[in-house]
Amino acid sequence: MKLNKVDLSFQSCTASYDEADVVIFSVPMDATTSFRPGTRFAGNAIRVDSFGVEWYSPYQDADLKDFKTVDTGDLDLPIGAVEDALDIVYEATKTIINDDKLPMMIGGEHLVTYPVLKALKEKYDNLHVIHLDAHTDLRESFFGRELSHATFMRQAHKFLGDHHIYQFGIRSGDKHEFMWAKEHIYQRKFDFEGLDQAVLDLKDKPVYITIDLDVLDPSVFPGTGTPEAGGMQYKDLLWAFEQFGKLNHIVGADIVELSPYLDPSGASNAVAAKSLRELILILQKNLLKRK
Amino acid sequence: MKLNKVDLSFQSCTASYDEADVVIFSVPMDATTSFRPGTRFAGNAIRVDSFGVEWYSPYQDADLKDFKTVDTGDLDLPIGAVEDALDIVYEATKTIINDDKLPMMIGGEHLVTYPVLKALKEKYDNLHVIHLDAHTDLRESFFGRELSHATFMRQAHKFLGDHHIYQFGIRSGDKHEFMWAKEHIYQRKFDFEGLDQAVLDLKDKPVYITIDLDVLDPSVFPGTGTPEAGGMQYKDLLWAFEQFGKLNHIVGADIVELSPYLDPSGASNAVAAKSLRELILILQKNLLKRK
Amino acid sequence: MKLNKVDLSFQSCTASYDEADVVIFSVPMDATTSFRPGTRFAGNAIRVDSFGVEWYSPYQDADLKDFKTVDTGDLDLPIGAVEDALDIVYEATKTIINDDKLPMMIGGEHLVTYPVLKALKEKYDNLHVIHLDAHTDLRESFFGRELSHATFMRQAHKFLGDHHIYQFGIRSGDKHEFMWAKEHIYQRKFDFEGLDQAVLDLKDKPVYITIDLDVLDPSVFPGTGTPEAGGMQYKDLLWAFEQFGKLNHIVGADIVELSPYLDPSGASNAVAAKSLRELILILQKNLLKRK
Amino acid sequence: MKLNKVDLSFQSCTASYDEADVVIFSVPMDATTSFRPGTRFAGNAIRVDSFGVEWYSPYQDADLKDFKTVDTGDLDLPIGAVEDALDIVYEATKTIINDDKLPMMIGGEHLVTYPVLKALKEKYDNLHVIHLDAHTDLRESFFGRELSHATFMRQAHKFLGDHHIYQFGIRSGDKHEFMWAKEHIYQRKFDFEGLDQAVLDLKDKPVYITIDLDVLDPSVFPGTGTPEAGGMQYKDLLWAFEQFGKLNHIVGADIVELSPYLDPSGASNAVAAKSLRELILILQKNLLKRK
Amino acid sequence: MKLNKVDLSFQSCTASYDEADVVIFSVPMDATTSFRPGTRFAGNAIRVDSFGVEWYSPYQDADLKDFKTVDTGDLDLPIGAVEDALDIVYEATKTIINDDKLPMMIGGEHLVTYPVLKALKEKYDNLHVIHLDAHTDLRESFFGRELSHATFMRQAHKFLGDHHIYQFGIRSGDKHEFMWAKEHIYQRKFDFEGLDQAVLDLKDKPVYITIDLDVLDPSVFPGTGTPEAGGMQYKDLLWAFEQFGKLNHIVGADIVELSPYLDPSGASNAVAAKSLRELILILQKNLLKRK
Amino acid sequence: MKLNKVDLSFQSCTASYDEADVVIFSVPMDATTSFRPGTRFAGNAIRVDSFGVEWYSPYQDADLKDFKTVDTGDLDLPIGAVEDALDIVYEATKTIINDDKLPMMIGGEHLVTYPVLKALKEKYDNLHVIHLDAHTDLRESFFGRELSHATFMRQAHKFLGDHHIYQFGIRSGDKHEFMWAKEHIYQRKFDFEGLDQAVLDLKDKPVYITIDLDVLDPSVFPGTGTPEAGGMQYKDLLWAFEQFGKLNHIVGADIVELSPYLDPSGASNAVAAKSLRELILILQKNLLKRK
Repeated sequence: MKLNKVDLSFQSCTASYDEADVVIFSVPMDATTSFRPGTRFAGNAIRVDSFGVEWYSPYQDADLKDFKTVDTGDLDLPIGAVEDALDIVYEATKTIINDDKLPMMIGGEHLVTYPVLKALKEKYDNLHVIHLDAHTDLRESFFGRELSHATFMRQAHKFLGDHHIYQFGIRSGDKHEFMWAKEHIYQRKFDFEGLDQAVLDLKDKPVYITIDLDVLDPSVFPGTGTPEAGGMQYKDLLWAFEQFGKLNHIVGADIVELSPYLDPSGASNAVAAKSLRELILILQKNLLKRK
Repeated sequence: MKLNKVDLSFQSCTASYDEADVVIFSVPMDATTSFRPGTRFAGNAIRVDSFGVEWYSPYQDADLKDFKTVDTGDLDLPIGAVEDALDIVYEATKTIINDDKLPMMIGGEHLVTYPVLKALKEKYDNLHVIHLDAHTDLRESFFGRELSHATFMRQAHKFLGDHHIYQFGIRSGDKHEFMWAKEHIYQRKFDFEGLDQAVLDLKDKPVYITIDLDVLDPSVFPGTGTPEAGGMQYKDLLWAFEQFGKLNHIVGADIVELSPYLDPSGASNAVAAKSLRELILILQKNLLKRK
Repeated sequence: MKLNKVDLSFQSCTASYDEADVVIFSVPMDATTSFRPGTRFAGNAIRVDSFGVEWYSPYQDADLKDFKTVDTGDLDLPIGAVEDALDIVYEATKTIINDDKLPMMIGGEHLVTYPVLKALKEKYDNLHVIHLDAHTDLRESFFGRELSHATFMRQAHKFLGDHHIYQFGIRSGDKHEFMWAKEHIYQRKFDFEGLDQAVLDLKDKPVYITIDLDVLDPSVFPGTGTPEAGGMQYKDLLWAFEQFGKLNHIVGADIVELSPYLDPSGASNAVAAKSLRELILILQKNLLKRK
Repeated sequence: MKLNKVDLSFQSCTASYDEADVVIFSVPMDATTSFRPGTRFAGNAIRVDSFGVEWYSPYQDADLKDFKTVDTGDLDLPIGAVEDALDIVYEATKTIINDDKLPMMIGGEHLVTYPVLKALKEKYDNLHVIHLDAHTDLRESFFGRELSHATFMRQAHKFLGDHHIYQFGIRSGDKHEFMWAKEHIYQRKFDFEGLDQAVLDLKDKPVYITIDLDVLDPSVFPGTGTPEAGGMQYKDLLWAFEQFGKLNHIVGADIVELSPYLDPSGASNAVAAKSLRELILILQKNLLKRK
Repeated sequence: MKLNKVDLSFQSCTASYDEADVVIFSVPMDATTSFRPGTRFAGNAIRVDSFGVEWYSPYQDADLKDFKTVDTGDLDLPIGAVEDALDIVYEATKTIINDDKLPMMIGGEHLVTYPVLKALKEKYDNLHVIHLDAHTDLRESFFGRELSHATFMRQAHKFLGDHHIYQFGIRSGDKHEFMWAKEHIYQRKFDFEGLDQAVLDLKDKPVYITIDLDVLDPSVFPGTGTPEAGGMQYKDLLWAFEQFGKLNHIVGADIVELSPYLDPSGASNAVAAKSLRELILILQKNLLKRK
Repeated sequence: MKLNKVDLSFQSCTASYDEADVVIFSVPMDATTSFRPGTRFAGNAIRVDSFGVEWYSPYQDADLKDFKTVDTGDLDLPIGAVEDALDIVYEATKTIINDDKLPMMIGGEHLVTYPVLKALKEKYDNLHVIHLDAHTDLRESFFGRELSHATFMRQAHKFLGDHHIYQFGIRSGDKHEFMWAKEHIYQRKFDFEGLDQAVLDLKDKPVYITIDLDVLDPSVFPGTGTPEAGGMQYKDLLWAFEQFGKLNHIVGADIVELSPYLDPSGASNAVAAKSLRELILILQKNLLKRK
């Protein structure tokens, strides 16, 4: 019998970094979370519970085992030092995209998407973002800070430019955010209507997909810090995934805001793990298209 | 730096009693609960978790901060003495309506609505009630008692009269209750169909709104003592709120049966807090209409 | 005052074995569970929480108290001995059907359905199965074993024959299972579409109904070992029950895979208890039809 | 195979009422609970979890199977009607002691001990009580009521008389209670010191033992409504049980205030079940002594 | 009936700021927490659950109602901005001590003690600290930061000086911390031995008491982010409180590191609330001595 | 920045198999568990939570980083096939000891110790076992099976021989087990008295240490399937570890029966992780002695 070092990579994503096309990394950061923290544990919770998820997706008729994906685990972050942590996320993203691989990030709080966008923008000048979320995340500042989970998309707008951000499912924010959105971004309140059209519009453009899992109804995804009632069903998210499959140039994706300790049933972990499987397959099939 | 006494009023409802138009009070009573008690803690759970709820409602395009609302906290009740406790709820309601303010109650078990209706009936002779619930609450008696959470609406019918009660979402009760309902009240089983028409019929009449949050599916609202599968989604409730906005003469409202310890994820608290925000805004906007 | 031995039969199902038409039994077995075990506690959890469920069903306009049902409790099983335990389930089923009563089983893991089908097939040569589930359960073998929760329906197919199994709601499995299904059984992926037609086709044939409650979305039923997002709402299950009511020859039914400790809110227990009430009434009304 | 009605008696206590020497009954009442209710579920929680407890006690070298004990389950109580419920407990106790059996009660809140004492006092004029508790329960009235969990022992004193109550482990109460205790009862604060001497003093007198399990430290017994830090270890309770074994005339016993939903680990249920086994054996061996 | 604004002050501490001698404030900060965050919710959790705690302490024979204490609630902090938050704690402490009142702080993570010590040192040149904790908190830096929960006492040493810090109960740290401690502070590993002597030594000196509640064994206090087995029983802490009562010049106190969501039983909240009651009474009685 | 595959080895035990002296492996098996299963998740729960444990032990003044330890993760086991799974544990142990390394196993249910002992006995003819446990595990058979968690030590006795097993802390079993123990093994009931003497007796003999963590009181370790009140404090276990340090020839060790989902506070995981650190250091220091 041969004994090896433990390998707790996400379900069957056991390629090496060098051979992989898609790179999973997780960001254990919840420093600017305003309500209930805990998303720092999301990455490893998904890894450990991924044993309950099949390799094969009947939705996409595709199998994780037919692709090369590496799981690089949690980034090593300084605790309580927001800027330093964001720099590390930026560096990780740069490394991955310089090596011509696609980043597949697991948050952490939503602020961790900011440095990924910054790095991607440097490579893809016409970068667009599809953003599923319950919250606008468009405040100019929040509790006196420019960079936080509640402001990051407003800050990202500064380098992405007008009309490069497409938000869906939004149902919480202050009045100013909703008013600002009308002029600067595409924003669909309450549901995903128009996502199919947006995908058509963005078909050949470089698109990053960021999914705050709290876009789902708290019934579907209670394991999150700021549950916001009135959200989407999981079948709606599956429909959104189906749309994403029609894009020709996806440059990366993330899922954020799983806070595993808040849902003792483990169902939220299962939701996140299944979503991760679907997104990895979307990224991998997107690469196939481009070959 | 100025230090003041702690203020744990519901999200931004920090007016004084005298200046307020709407008065929040909570009733820590679960004495006649037949299954799992715990609703007595609902008021303070909602207060503490209201920090996770925005002031602004994108559904109503209205902001709590633009109105005067006071939160008077838990009523001080004798424990285990049902009649005495109900008297205190009655007195509180009388005080509020005599001061020409609108009562916004947080239960407790559903029996606490009974004394509110009694007090309101004395002021509004043609009082009607819109009642969202999973359970009929129409038993003649329950475990040998006339006044309990399972009988209160049947008892209230004695002073409200035939055809003044409009029930929606009902999916549990005994056979006799359902048969009795056919003759004496408007009752819609299983969903909210007809609520828009009912609102039209009641448009200019004095209407009280009582919402047993277990009308929601247990997936949406697991934090309740008697979860009853097959209920409404939160988007259905938002649609009901939209209908309520068309009424011209709302005289008060309540949400009851949150039992916070039963849902460790906190999602049920968030559902209740968001519903409370919407109802406060409905009451406040209703007052504006009448000015 | 007369004191008697404790009776914790499921809600009002207090007939004796001899006078009963329907026989409830539960199977405390989760030995081949691959992810999170705990279904062995389902039977007693449902019994204890059945106090929160009404006797009367407004869906079927029928009352448990108008029928004779016995609850025989957990079977007494050897722990860790899969084959021996399955033999005991087989013997219990034989006893019940030899006494011309209908079996109403509570799992346990889904493998416990296998010996029930084996016993029923010996009595009803043309036995058909309606199978609601998130998972195919059609593997040829699983972790080196032929009999497990992931293989049992494939094994049952060996004696049921082609086109006698009707699956609905399936959304997880490996690719080979889905391909095999296309040739040998009726399989509807993702939802219940076609169930009404299947019921018409099977109207007068002997039909067994097996419901893995994880066919429900994890939001509705988080208390299960392998939650699989993207499932059915409880109203969909109620619709399926309505279809079952149109069958003329139901020979038994089961609900499996409740794992009560995984849902601290108790909502999953309530879902299972309500489903059990509906199925008992379906079985009892089915017997009435045949008299 | 023979199928019988489910029997969920406490671990191996399956005698009939007529043949039994000790009678278990549980009282699902928590109506006057001032903090967190839920003790009404204690009886059935102990029954279901008693499967995890051995029949044999290595402490007493005695086995439940060598004795005749019946478990009569929950009394059937009117909900929210305190006086009526207490009457039923009184009647049950009268029935048991008139049949020359020993009552072994499971609470419920501590008020349920009051009617048991009243019934016993009518049979045993010189009745003494050993009372283990964190709380004095000696208020003259509480929230305006004479009969509540916080007053019951003061009320019982009215018929038991001075110096017939022996309290141990007390660490919470108001100042007046502690002062009153000095003159009217034996009260040991904080621990069990003196319990061995008390047992010697009461050796041949009729003694009832009432154990509020919150006398244990919350670490040992978190599943209770009003946890009070600084309590006893379980080994201390085992020592107390050893002392009780030296009494010659025990007339009954109870354990109260388990609130099972408050301890999701189930450890509190296990503590209660083990304590119940020990007390049943103490009662049974006490009867043997007297034969 | 008179209705007032809700008052959720800690149990009966309802004085105004001006009339109070002791000032409770809580610090909702867990930004540098390295393992499981959540202590930001401690203040309000203690407030809400303080209803389960008596006003009277039988240990000190003293009653909260006989003293003037104000509860000023959570400080309003910028989220994710460590230095700014610490400045606000510093300002609050300055305000309180300039008004000749005693600060009674509720953490938050342990770093919040740092600015309190800084403020107190400016008033009391010979300030000493008694520090109960499982962890040394003496790292020179931690994850690249000088100010964190793991370094704060080492940083405080820079202005407190050698031999002004007295640690007890320490059982976790790295080797360098333990070695550094030998030369610069008094450190008792594993238990409270020597605390009585330390109190004698510090009898008339200005002493601040800081209690990381994780000094208690995780069995006693599971609701904390970094549980460390092998800790103290609550009776040991009561003994420590008794020693503190012998000090003549206490200048403030705190309890930190309660993370309420981690202990669903609520027992940890009860432990913290009782400890807070004892400390308030110690502070108040200390002021009496000095009058 | 360099990105590598995720490494979730237990805290700093990141050596390769070849360079390691001590080999951690975990056994995800709970097939014969008679009460609450779930121990199969222990290994990964300990890995993920080991981030909360320091590398350095102040008890042994030793640091994990100064030694070479490998963590090989969960063994890959067939589910529901007891004998096959035990064979794999046996093979793993053979591999490790043939490579002259020490096995450090994480259970799983206690039966997994049986094949380890079998393998070790083949290498060390005079093998002795120190066994800390709440339960005797000495049944001749259990629910009809010879090999189960409740029988394994009786079965191991068949090859270990009389007086080679030393049990401590035992407080649950049936009468026959206790009687059998008197003749065939050393058994200390209820506590660890005599463990120091046993260590002296076994000083130079080959000793395996097996620790069922339920030997601890459920207050200290609630996360286990069969909590048994009246157990040991963690300080007692630390004292036992100190004794183990005096042995000269330890041949391996295990900790079993952590069931992580049963303790939502995570404290049980922390207890297990700290115990694992201590045992690894004991094994490593034992090897140093022998060099």
